[in-house]
Amino acid sequence: MNLLEQYTLSYRSRVDASLAQALERREPLSATLHQAMVYGTMQGGKRIRPFLVYATGNIFNIAPEKLDKLAAAIECIHAYSLIHDDLPAMDDDELRRGQPTCHIAFDEATAILAGDALQTLAFELIAEADENFTPAQQLAMVRVLANASGLSGMCGGQALDLEAENKQVNLAALERIHSGKTGALIRAAVTLGALSYADVTQQELDLLDQFAQAIGLAFQVQDDILDITSDTQTLGKPQGSDQALNKSTYPALLGLAGAKEKAQALYQESLHALAKLDYNTELLELFAHYIIERNK
Amino acid sequence: MNLLEQYTLSYRSRVDASLAQALERREPLSATLHQAMVYGTMQGGKRIRPFLVYATGNIFNIAPEKLDKLAAAIECIHAYSLIHDDLPAMDDDELRRGQPTCHIAFDEATAILAGDALQTLAFELIAEADENFTPAQQLAMVRVLANASGLSGMCGGQALDLEAENKQVNLAALERIHSGKTGALIRAAVTLGALSYADVTQQELDLLDQFAQAIGLAFQVQDDILDITSDTQTLGKPQGSDQALNKSTYPALLGLAGAKEKAQALYQESLHALAKLDYNTELLELFAHYIIERNK
Repeated sequence: MNLLEQYTLSYRSRVDASLAQALERREPLSATLHQAMVYGTMQGGKRIRPFLVYATGNIFNIAPEKLDKLAAAIECIHAYSLIHDDLPAMDDDELRRGQPTCHIAFDEATAILAGDALQTLAFELIAEADENFTPAQQLAMVRVLANASGLSGMCGGQALDLEAENKQVNLAALERIHSGKTGALIRAAVTLGALSYADVTQQELDLLDQFAQAIGLAFQVQDDILDITSDTQTLGKPQGSDQALNKSTYPALLGLAGAKEKAQALYQESLHALAKLDYNTELLELFAHYIIERNK
Repeated sequence: MNLLEQYTLSYRSRVDASLAQALERREPLSATLHQAMVYGTMQGGKRIRPFLVYATGNIFNIAPEKLDKLAAAIECIHAYSLIHDDLPAMDDDELRRGQPTCHIAFDEATAILAGDALQTLAFELIAEADENFTPAQQLAMVRVLANASGLSGMCGGQALDLEAENKQVNLAALERIHSGKTGALIRAAVTLGALSYADVTQQELDLLDQFAQAIGLAFQVQDDILDITSDTQTLGKPQGSDQALNKSTYPALLGLAGAKEKAQALYQESLHALAKLDYNTELLELFAHYIIERNK
């Protein structure tokens, strides 16, 4: 097992425990709603956003146990967005990672509420009393997460994505969609990790944000590439599904070779940003490499 | 125009302006999503929660302009819950206050996203840089709003409410539903107003919370009474709709006279709590009276 795999596993088990604990600790009014929230967060997945919180904190020597709630919070936002995305009125998906989606396992109304309550939980977790951070730090974290999740971020990107269905959009429009839909939360994960270090400078925040922007987009480009080059079994979702939905993709706009070049260029861009930081950024470098080399 | 009406109008126009400004100030990725959010917040309504933020701040001499963002934030949570409540998978309502509901005026996917992004906006507004409050105060406000909105509060109450459809529940269960579904946010409104006063004591917070609990429940009891005694035109929604849905109500469990007694008892309870405060609470008293006397 290489270094990246070691950290990935360790961080994944940390955030799983943190999510489970966050949901256990709360007194739910409805057991069904509680179960649907657990279901929606415990279906596995890559836990990329939590990884980035931990790995960014790690470069500033912030112990992972101080970051557990932040990691759980950002995963709550991601999980809620998937639950709502899968709804019949949105992407109408019945399977996610081989399991019935939340509205199939429960019902639509419960899935809507579970998504809603997971979003709330994210903000609860960040705002909870926490001796590791000052109130000003926590408040900045709430701001970062909220800015990334709303109409100028994730929700906005999803709305744009819906509008672009069955329509050819150009490269600038495609980047706008992804910068909202997935990019904003990936950048927020990195910034949350960085803000956990009380003495982080604006310059360090900016460089880390450049890194995050580049890998966020690279992640999407690689996703589009895999939709063409991988097979259904490896992907865990139907291969060619983007093409089938007539979605605009990087390979469609740039050609497969062009898309691969784009991913490489973004990878290099992410490394350049990290190189300017006076810290050991090996883990983030390995992660950036994984993003463009992954086959699922 | 009496004193309560004067304040109600003034606070309503304040929160309307604050909501409009909050939405205008933001750079939306999708114009459609932005429009749906405006639509979902600008359909009028009683603005009860914003009123309670302002009126509670008022007893501590907090100027209303310092409370505009808090008032807008809690109304964003309320508005998002109505948009999601009206969805086909939930209450399936096509009209609200005589206007097409958000998913009718736009579409279901947009309505889901508009609700999601309005919830986010609430936390953005509270966490924004604000020279009127310390970071610790703002963080406490985020906590209050989040606790009231999630699985132990509003979302939990809505889930319970869905589970109780076509089922007879007892008085304790009915109170649990309403304490989550409407009570939690009404209490949060009062607490947000109180927390805007930096020197508020725990005892004052507790007394105001007793007040808020009583009027929150009284509001629901009166709603149930009006569903029987009022007419469709006055209500702005079909009279008898709770009965038609076979929902458990206070008159069904206590009889009409019993429900009216209950509302009176809660009103008296709310006044007792206010009487113990060393402040001028006239506005809150008038409001409590309105809650049980209103005919729509």
